[in-house]
Amino acid sequence: MANADLSLWDVLANWKTNCNWVDLSHTLSPKTPHWHGFNALSEKILFDFDNAPFKTFEYTTPGQYGTHVDVPSHFDPEGRPMDQIDIKEMVYPLCVIDKSDACALNADYALTIDDVREWENTHGKIPEGALVAFRSDWYKRDSVAFENRDKDGNAHYPGWEPETIKWLVEERNIGSIGHEPPDTDPAALQHVSGFAGEEYILKQDRVQFELLKNLDLVPATGAIAFCMFPKLEGGTGFSMRCMAICPK
Amino acid sequence: MANADLSLWDVLANWKTNCNWVDLSHTLSPKTPHWHGFNALSEKILFDFDNAPFKTFEYTTPGQYGTHVDVPSHFDPEGRPMDQIDIKEMVYPLCVIDKSDACALNADYALTIDDVREWENTHGKIPEGALVAFRSDWYKRDSVAFENRDKDGNAHYPGWEPETIKWLVEERNIGSIGHEPPDTDPAALQHVSGFAGEEYILKQDRVQFELLKNLDLVPATGAIAFCMFPKLEGGTGFSMRCMAICPK
Repeated sequence: MANADLSLWDVLANWKTNCNWVDLSHTLSPKTPHWHGFNALSEKILFDFDNAPFKTFEYTTPGQYGTHVDVPSHFDPEGRPMDQIDIKEMVYPLCVIDKSDACALNADYALTIDDVREWENTHGKIPEGALVAFRSDWYKRDSVAFENRDKDGNAHYPGWEPETIKWLVEERNIGSIGHEPPDTDPAALQHVSGFAGEEYILKQDRVQFELLKNLDLVPATGAIAFCMFPKLEGGTGFSMRCMAICPK
Repeated sequence: MANADLSLWDVLANWKTNCNWVDLSHTLSPKTPHWHGFNALSEKILFDFDNAPFKTFEYTTPGQYGTHVDVPSHFDPEGRPMDQIDIKEMVYPLCVIDKSDACALNADYALTIDDVREWENTHGKIPEGALVAFRSDWYKRDSVAFENRDKDGNAHYPGWEPETIKWLVEERNIGSIGHEPPDTDPAALQHVSGFAGEEYILKQDRVQFELLKNLDLVPATGAIAFCMFPKLEGGTGFSMRCMAICPK
């Protein structure tokens, strides 16, 4: 991909020509997938071409809307808010664990330590500081199938077993996790153990990324994820832009 | 910086160890610098630890608040909105033209073609596709000195001569421009030629970046700028995170 004397500019030119760039973010509109407890984004026009030489909007949005970051202060009263996250925590080696087939068969699927071990048998050890993303293909569902509520109104979508996240932190010292549904914990498991997985990762002083898309377009290893978000003073999370630069 | 067999992951590890990472973004709060025609950001708490296991906010904000991107549809009714901007348009080789001394002497300073030529005499030709950023050190001013109004209430802050931007597009085919004040055009020049510079660059189907900070911490050449923003459907601009990865 590079040679001995490459400057940063040469590396970038190389990446723009020879890598696949994949957008991992949903478009934001009132229809964007979001956690059921929040209102949708709303917008109003502040200036338009009939009364100004430009057009601008004002937006009202929950912090955690569409593809977004959660930072430690989201679940930990003592945790770091958005303005204390280092910019290096926005860029990671990306490992994608594909359990989309299992999720198609079982909407309550919870990613296990064995799934991670199986992935490592094929792709090698997850490197320290990686962003480990759980591919479920859930992003391909429309809004009704996304929440996937049963006749009693209970949602069913996949997530992480809390002990899997604990293993990744303790045994691999990962940097972060990411997933396509609106929660870390499988919807069905929330009735049993609440938000145990989400609380755990954020209390480990790490950020996490939710409502990712296009993980099926990214290789299992070798890509870099750039997940960058506005720096809100005291913020607990916000919509972001996340992309992967991938080897061809 | 790299060797012949470096993978993307190796390059990233190298950058995390051997490069300077500089945040070019203001922290967002009600006090963040913004164009005088907009209300400040406001926030309210949706959930807090006394009534939930987590804390979340709802924000109301103008699109163009704090460090932000402007896209073509901001000034061109036929221009591309935010959701049509390619993710490669968020990453650029960064050239920084330092006229902070001139701006300290003259708040109405307008960056000229001769300034660019002088810069090229020292640093070499501006490469095609570059982000050319105008360093004024304006970001260091507090809010009163930032708008810098005279006794008649007219603001005074520096900006680009429109013909300088035209030269950079036509003669160098640059990718984008960036600056520290809230406008492309010097405040005083707006009484003469309106927003001619801003309208020009956006009607060239390019994005631009405003209210940048820390350009004094970035070298004149050799850094890569990552300016990433949420993908708002039909949006004309939004707060973003911008950082530079710089050779040491």
